[in-house]
Amino acid sequence: MAAQKSPRSASGRPAPDAARRSERSRRAIYDAALALVVEVGYPKTTVEGIAARAGVGKQTIYRWWPSKAEVLMEAFLDLSLQAAEEAAEGEAGQAPYAIPDTGDVAADLKAVLRATVDELRDPRYEAPARALAAEGVVNEPLGREFMARLLGPSLQLYVDRLRAAQEAGQIRADIDPRIALELFVSPLAQRWLQYTGPISHEYTDTLVDYALNGLAPR
Amino acid sequence: MAAQKSPRSASGRPAPDAARRSERSRRAIYDAALALVVEVGYPKTTVEGIAARAGVGKQTIYRWWPSKAEVLMEAFLDLSLQAAEEAAEGEAGQAPYAIPDTGDVAADLKAVLRATVDELRDPRYEAPARALAAEGVVNEPLGREFMARLLGPSLQLYVDRLRAAQEAGQIRADIDPRIALELFVSPLAQRWLQYTGPISHEYTDTLVDYALNGLAPR
Repeated sequence: MAAQKSPRSASGRPAPDAARRSERSRRAIYDAALALVVEVGYPKTTVEGIAARAGVGKQTIYRWWPSKAEVLMEAFLDLSLQAAEEAAEGEAGQAPYAIPDTGDVAADLKAVLRATVDELRDPRYEAPARALAAEGVVNEPLGREFMARLLGPSLQLYVDRLRAAQEAGQIRADIDPRIALELFVSPLAQRWLQYTGPISHEYTDTLVDYALNGLAPR
Repeated sequence: MAAQKSPRSASGRPAPDAARRSERSRRAIYDAALALVVEVGYPKTTVEGIAARAGVGKQTIYRWWPSKAEVLMEAFLDLSLQAAEEAAEGEAGQAPYAIPDTGDVAADLKAVLRATVDELRDPRYEAPARALAAEGVVNEPLGREFMARLLGPSLQLYVDRLRAAQEAGQIRADIDPRIALELFVSPLAQRWLQYTGPISHEYTDTLVDYALNGLAPR
């Protein structure tokens, strides 16, 4: 978003110096926004406060984003993308955020849930993720935007992987993948959000096994 | 807690008038605490504010509870107990909070999850539940106390019911009930907390069917 609206030369492409300055400002604004929401909470985070901490004018922020909610949402999306890119490094051809399809749905789900456990425990990610999640619980419009822009697209990746598993005969055809994914995604989310239990790779592996095989005797 | 510490006569039993006054104050304090946390949020709710709204002195609150966290936790426990008692009314012999054991574990889990859906949608319960849950996400000591005193005992009821089902051969013996319950409890919690989808009786029925039978072909 920032890149599209950064200063441009007459050719319509960003002038190199202006683009660099603009990228530096955008980065400073994201860092300031994430630091503030952790320190003072969402309600007390203001565009003025973000601008002061980032060392830019308030108008610079309003030129690129309509409100603090938008700044925070994009700062957090940017952080998540960075984390995903780091996690995918070294795995040739692995697009960030994609769920692998090795043909073994249990192994693929376990791998992506293990990576999620690592991300939830990363201190750079954890504090801003908690601040935004907490506000979403009591602020329905923000919660729904968080769902639409961040959680929803992640959940869709599970839907796609489960559909492929249905085609491969590894998941029953009469299962709704949008509900099915919650059997292993939501327990991890609740343990993280509500401290209902410890999170570990062994735990998420168990969730996948229970969900695929069921609790009742076969 | 309040009853144990209310004014007592020489016999050691509460003097009737003092006990009535005391019960009236306790109720006013709970109502004020729940209303305030909804209106201004947990961080801005103070013992002074609760006292002023309840029409009691600050010292009355501190005589019974050490902090606002304790007042709110007990006010919320009291609210949950009332809701559970109302739900159990008319069901002879049904203790509040117990999960029925009719011998059919699927039917029993569906019944209790349907009741939970109704409770989560009750406006008296929803707003304070959201305010406390949101604070628990960013305030780890409060989140853990909420777990120990409220969520934990509720989850234990599912553990007990699943153990009985294991003895009856309806759940595999090698399943850990403490993890297994999360396959149907956590999806409902996450939809409610994070607006990841609508909640309904049909939805929780589906969760129970998927969890018991598994997603893979049988």
